[in-house]
Amino acid sequence: MDALKFDSKGLLTAVVQDIDTGKVLMVAMMDATALRMTLQTKQAHFWSRSREKLWLKGETSGNLLDVIQVKIDCDSDSLLLQVKPRGPACHTGNFTCFYRDLDEDDVKQII
Amino acid sequence: MDALKFDSKGLLTAVVQDIDTGKVLMVAMMDATALRMTLQTKQAHFWSRSREKLWLKGETSGNLLDVIQVKIDCDSDSLLLQVKPRGPACHTGNFTCFYRDLDEDDVKQII
Repeated sequence: MDALKFDSKGLLTAVVQDIDTGKVLMVAMMDATALRMTLQTKQAHFWSRSREKLWLKGETSGNLLDVIQVKIDCDSDSLLLQVKPRGPACHTGNFTCFYRDLDEDDVKQII
Repeated sequence: MDALKFDSKGLLTAVVQDIDTGKVLMVAMMDATALRMTLQTKQAHFWSRSREKLWLKGETSGNLLDVIQVKIDCDSDSLLLQVKPRGPACHTGNFTCFYRDLDEDDVKQII
């Protein structure tokens, strides 16, 4: 196993997937501590860029993500967390953060 | 639809998922041009950070990713591309870039 390739801010991208349905639930960042805590506790931890601190996902809402499997990509800079979510993963109450479709007309308007 | 939230380098994170199997295939970055090209051509385009140029995924290998659906997350900073891959998505020849499991013992050794 190669060394993990953290970015210049010490972070890796983590994709979270529901292991039962295959749905992609969210994308977040992990530093080394968040990754260690995730593997030790089997609860998804991330680095919150807005709050600049370790973040146990679901700490407030109770919607923890029980981590079943962690995978690392070929470049060793992205992680895939396969989880059983205890509730909606998205802070909006949606099951997944990816609840909106994007098409060409949208993009003409917004970029 | 809110404006897309490109990072300080003008990039969004894009997760690629096989729409038929649900497998997460890869993670890459997109700038505005890559996103527009992807939506226009229905072939996944990315921004290559190593080569610093627009990258049509599969241009050399032929392993294009036919894009069926694009989704945007609640924060408008990550994309989910649901695709039909024409071949292995990974440059190693693996179907997915996430072909390695990571456990606590690995992480003790590599960070």
